[in-house]
Amino acid sequence: MNLEKLPRTLELYSADESRVSLRFVDQTRLPSCLIQVETDDWRRVVEAIARLEIRGAPAIGLAGASALVLAFSSLMPEFSSSTSFMQQLRLIAKEISSTRPTAINLSWGVKQVLGKAETLFCEGEKIAQVQKKLFEAVKELEREDERVNRAIGAQGADLLPSSCRVLTHCNAGSLATGFYGTALGVIYAGAAQGKIERVFVDETRPVGQGARLTSWELSQVGIPATLICDNMAASVMASGRVDAIVVGADRICRNGDVANKVGTYGLAVLAHYHQVPFYVAAPLSSIDFDTEEGSRVLIEERSPDEISSYMLEGLDIYNPAFDITPSTLIAAVITEQGVFSTADKSWDDLVRFFA
Amino acid sequence: MNLEKLPRTLELYSADESRVSLRFVDQTRLPSCLIQVETDDWRRVVEAIARLEIRGAPAIGLAGASALVLAFSSLMPEFSSSTSFMQQLRLIAKEISSTRPTAINLSWGVKQVLGKAETLFCEGEKIAQVQKKLFEAVKELEREDERVNRAIGAQGADLLPSSCRVLTHCNAGSLATGFYGTALGVIYAGAAQGKIERVFVDETRPVGQGARLTSWELSQVGIPATLICDNMAASVMASGRVDAIVVGADRICRNGDVANKVGTYGLAVLAHYHQVPFYVAAPLSSIDFDTEEGSRVLIEERSPDEISSYMLEGLDIYNPAFDITPSTLIAAVITEQGVFSTADKSWDDLVRFFA
Repeated sequence: MNLEKLPRTLELYSADESRVSLRFVDQTRLPSCLIQVETDDWRRVVEAIARLEIRGAPAIGLAGASALVLAFSSLMPEFSSSTSFMQQLRLIAKEISSTRPTAINLSWGVKQVLGKAETLFCEGEKIAQVQKKLFEAVKELEREDERVNRAIGAQGADLLPSSCRVLTHCNAGSLATGFYGTALGVIYAGAAQGKIERVFVDETRPVGQGARLTSWELSQVGIPATLICDNMAASVMASGRVDAIVVGADRICRNGDVANKVGTYGLAVLAHYHQVPFYVAAPLSSIDFDTEEGSRVLIEERSPDEISSYMLEGLDIYNPAFDITPSTLIAAVITEQGVFSTADKSWDDLVRFFA
Repeated sequence: MNLEKLPRTLELYSADESRVSLRFVDQTRLPSCLIQVETDDWRRVVEAIARLEIRGAPAIGLAGASALVLAFSSLMPEFSSSTSFMQQLRLIAKEISSTRPTAINLSWGVKQVLGKAETLFCEGEKIAQVQKKLFEAVKELEREDERVNRAIGAQGADLLPSSCRVLTHCNAGSLATGFYGTALGVIYAGAAQGKIERVFVDETRPVGQGARLTSWELSQVGIPATLICDNMAASVMASGRVDAIVVGADRICRNGDVANKVGTYGLAVLAHYHQVPFYVAAPLSSIDFDTEEGSRVLIEERSPDEISSYMLEGLDIYNPAFDITPSTLIAAVITEQGVFSTADKSWDDLVRFFA
């Protein structure tokens, strides 16, 4: 396994004291081209999130945080008072957070930076100092993201049997995070222990995150993978070729219900029927303790054009980007702090401890 | 509902006494173009079946029968003895039948013509007379196909509740048959009774028979339809928006197991979980009484290119065209002779009566 062949998904960097930019992989161009975009314009980052150039819950969390630092830097010449500065920054934070509604990480990332800015201004820091510290805070979020993912990987790998054949949906890989990945992190950690025989990769219609991104990642690092259409997962399971399913999460509710890429729920039902353990790998920051259960999660509907470029008379196209998997279908949620399940009292412990 | 807007999928015709041709809709060009191809070359028909220009179990049955009549006509100048003629015809029949292995209808259609030719030669008919009678036999198969489909439709419509929201997979429509369709036949008959509120159409990866063909048919006849990706069916069911699922069949085994377009099995599991009745609509000719159960059916694997045009290093692509749904997940098989289920003794009656 060769993780060095994976790029950093996105990195905030500073050419000099005042100029801050974000460098990110344009994921819409993979697997044919690995193209990195550099921008110091927060609106360009918002566009990248909307267009799925940057996608994956943890990655858009980092992108949101980075976008707010870019916005901060661009506002610096305009304001001298911290009050009017913060007013403007709050408006921009709101705009960034609303780009995609389902994953909690985007608003979480934005809040990290906004909260930090508020605190620093309250402490009487000068604007230039605040900018520097916000930049450092995002760099720490990037490092923390990788540490968390590696911890999730280690926790999850312990759950896998030897010669494990894993099925995954969408891309909860290195590309969906700062580096390493959540669900694919579990697979990478398992592969490092020699446990992974093969990964079945759901194509993941309509955007093809499995076909384009997960397949590419696994091929880069050298893990044997088989690409299938989403509708083939059931017969692959029925033939006894899947030992475990691992997916990521866009938002986990207080009761353990999981919002994730559309198709996750159906897979969980199929896993239940075929008695294949179904795992969700996600950082604690993906848990939204304020949302009681899955039915309360806003499911983003995206353009019909993602499914079909033609529109026939009388034909409607329904394109929800996510679905809700009830906690009862999930064997365990794998986090950086351990493995939790609503089937035993561990989930209640998690809520008590972290909420 | 306006069935006149649907073309005949394929029609054998005779410009004059000796020249016979097949006219068929090239289904790979739909929904953007409705193009009809005319050929008197049986090899072109085989190519059309292989390339999915003609697809759908009953339609390829008719195409196989027609191809053998075209082959017969093209052989006429070469042979004077019926023995060597039949030898050659048997070789061609074998070649046509082997084009696609899973649907029973192809070999069934070919056998109808081959058997008829044998009988006629045995009865001492002259070659020219045999050709004329084979042509008539195929025209009768075409008419019979429509009669059978309309009877399936009538039987199936009785099972649907009022204001029914039906989900279907692939295209078991008019295009998959000579005319009218099997699963869509049930929907057309239901719509004629004012029972159909909406049809959810599975996209049906990788070839998109749902997105391209079923959507087009429903839009032509004016039935409200919503196109979804295959992986969205589960959440549409969970939201209570599906009252029944109706699909076609490529081969039904003696024990009631059904081979059909890949994705059918997963849908049946999801239907079971959500307590949505799952119906298979097919003519009796789709039942293969010689194949005991689903595990004995040869599942055609098609080119990886159907799923992805790029091939990454170390990446394998698995592309089975069909899967097997066990009879236990099927509420009923809807045929032209009635509705049969393995849950009660009706299936045994069917086997006793028709095998």
